Amino acid sequence: MTQLLAAGAYDVYFTPIQMKKDRPAVKLSVLGNPLAKTALTKLILAETSTIGVRYQTWQRAIMQRHFETVQTPYGAVQLKVATYDDIEKKTPEFDDCAQLARKHQIPLMTVYQAALAAAGQLAKGE
Amino acid sequence: MTQLLAAGAYDVYFTPIQMKKDRPAVKLSVLGNPLAKTALTKLILAETSTIGVRYQTWQRAIMQRHFETVQTPYGAVQLKVATYDDIEKKTPEFDDCAQLARKHQIPLMTVYQAALAAAGQLAKGE
Amino acid sequence: MTQLLAAGAYDVYFTPIQMKKDRPAVKLSVLGNPLAKTALTKLILAETSTIGVRYQTWQRAIMQRHFETVQTPYGAVQLKVATYDDIEKKTPEFDDCAQLARKHQIPLMTVYQAALAAAGQLAKGE
Amino acid sequence: MTQLLAAGAYDVYFTPIQMKKDRPAVKLSVLGNPLAKTALTKLILAETSTIGVRYQTWQRAIMQRHFETVQTPYGAVQLKVATYDDIEKKTPEFDDCAQLARKHQIPLMTVYQAALAAAGQLAKGE
Amino acid sequence: MTQLLAAGAYDVYFTPIQMKKDRPAVKLSVLGNPLAKTALTKLILAETSTIGVRYQTWQRAIMQRHFETVQTPYGAVQLKVATYDDIEKKTPEFDDCAQLARKHQIPLMTVYQAALAAAGQLAKGE
Amino acid sequence: MTQLLAAGAYDVYFTPIQMKKDRPAVKLSVLGNPLAKTALTKLILAETSTIGVRYQTWQRAIMQRHFETVQTPYGAVQLKVATYDDIEKKTPEFDDCAQLARKHQIPLMTVYQAALAAAGQLAKGE
Repeated sequence: MTQLLAAGAYDVYFTPIQMKKDRPAVKLSVLGNPLAKTALTKLILAETSTIGVRYQTWQRAIMQRHFETVQTPYGAVQLKVATYDDIEKKTPEFDDCAQLARKHQIPLMTVYQAALAAAGQLAKGE
Repeated sequence: MTQLLAAGAYDVYFTPIQMKKDRPAVKLSVLGNPLAKTALTKLILAETSTIGVRYQTWQRAIMQRHFETVQTPYGAVQLKVATYDDIEKKTPEFDDCAQLARKHQIPLMTVYQAALAAAGQLAKGE
Repeated sequence: MTQLLAAGAYDVYFTPIQMKKDRPAVKLSVLGNPLAKTALTKLILAETSTIGVRYQTWQRAIMQRHFETVQTPYGAVQLKVATYDDIEKKTPEFDDCAQLARKHQIPLMTVYQAALAAAGQLAKGE
Repeated sequence: MTQLLAAGAYDVYFTPIQMKKDRPAVKLSVLGNPLAKTALTKLILAETSTIGVRYQTWQRAIMQRHFETVQTPYGAVQLKVATYDDIEKKTPEFDDCAQLARKHQIPLMTVYQAALAAAGQLAKGE
Repeated sequence: MTQLLAAGAYDVYFTPIQMKKDRPAVKLSVLGNPLAKTALTKLILAETSTIGVRYQTWQRAIMQRHFETVQTPYGAVQLKVATYDDIEKKTPEFDDCAQLARKHQIPLMTVYQAALAAAGQLAKGE
Repeated sequence: MTQLLAAGAYDVYFTPIQMKKDRPAVKLSVLGNPLAKTALTKLILAETSTIGVRYQTWQRAIMQRHFETVQTPYGAVQLKVATYDDIEKKTPEFDDCAQLARKHQIPLMTVYQAALAAAGQLAKGE
């Protein structure tokens, strides 16, 4: 995964599948720019046990993203704000929450929830 | 799922996948009419945590379907009859079987099997 | 699932597995009170295609639960409050959020986030 | 799987799991007689990449099984009859159906359904 | 699976999925030559419970394959050699290793490792 | 996962499951020393959305492990040697192989295979 992301893959994931002759297996899916196709193909063929790669072109709808900062009782947390037409979603950055949780010795969920609450207040106060 | 089906999706299913950074995840797949594309996209972006949707056009071969009714010792059951060229498959309607099973306090499989048996006799007697 | 829960199961879930002879399968797991063992066993044997059931006794640690109500800009939402020693977690009730989201024609996540924000304020104001 | 079943395992199955460091994996589950424990353990340690095996004792409820033969328009098919208290389930033998389907060049499901129908008549005529 | 491979499928695999109404299911994926499309479609519709098939055209990058034989302390083993540009991978044939392992009553992994070692010497000695 | 391993868990893994009401879910399994039970329980209840933990005592058979070093054309690689009765398995350390692969700009599998080959020769030469 690390090498594929370094080579320009947008995203990488595994799906458990079941192959013939009772063999459990894992399907590797890689999303990437068509320009990175050759590099990603060679990486997959060289580094995994597969002997073939299949390609498909997909269209995508991607939300615009920017970052905002909110103050929680435990410190500042960045929010990833994703927008698409009139849709807006705010998600606290996991790493920020984890860092504050470690610092204050409290559960990560407490920080996450506080950041969400702060995001809600921000929306109302804007 | 409910909202997607209400918004015109033909079918909706989840696939368990494994994402980077040790995150287990679920891939949401939605089959729908190209005309419903915008509505389904906005629904997915608004109601789930994803920030992107990918599209692909698929061809389909679909069996023709109609319904027949068979008599079982427990009451009438509808059969979904699916045909394609010379292929014909008859499947007892789950909800009918479940209702008769509850009414007679017997296992659903008993009703289902009786309906399948009746379907077989119907085929022979036609 | 419906029948098992009605017969006293605490929880029911499916796990995808792979059996011999290339057969994909699903493992049915049922958690229940030992007193319901016979009823649950007979239900599973009667209603599924399995011919055997395996049992195991598990210990459990369960959080205490009670409910609180918070006010959001969209209406009242119940929170499930789970406690264990000094751990406390508040989770907005999914059904309440879904109902308000439908009523106001807004995303469920917006209501959910508002309920979490209200829960955070409740905690601070107590 | 073949070796484990030959060494006395009652059943063997795989479950897809996700391990640390982004490694997809497969859990091997083996059900066997306690007397075969050492043999099965050594087989697993020798033939797979695992370095450890975990054991658990399970109770089991198993249906009694015997076989009956029914006549279908395509030939004789064995039924596996499983009973437990007042529960009785009849399942056409897959291999018999597959063989008749190949012989008559018809779908396996047609034979299977005919065997179920014959099983139903058997039950009524007994 | 057997029938699909006999009818010209390149590969066949199952993916566990979760459908609506709490139904666990399995997605059947078949890779095949476009010329075999009608035959594979009819086989799937006739032999499974599905009422529809979806198609997609994929491009493929496939490694060239040839076989080499290496001598191990346990006997000769075929290696599948896969090449693509400057990438070369050698994989001992599973069936050869299994046969020698049975013959010498040793773990399959021992034979496999010996074949890999012999493959490495072959590469260095060429 | 990171926190559980830091708190004394031997191993941690996820299994995809399907819960009631069409909810896909993930089962978290943690293997640990009974002495770490309270700490692991509180960590799980505090940091995840679950409200309950179930326990089971398992016996284990674990292979003895030590390390050996082999020389490959690309540099030294540590082998993990696992033994149990007369069973011995040698596995090249992933991190060593990855480091040499990066240093020589070659596929990780080439280094891994070279280490396996060297392990085989070591065994013969001892």
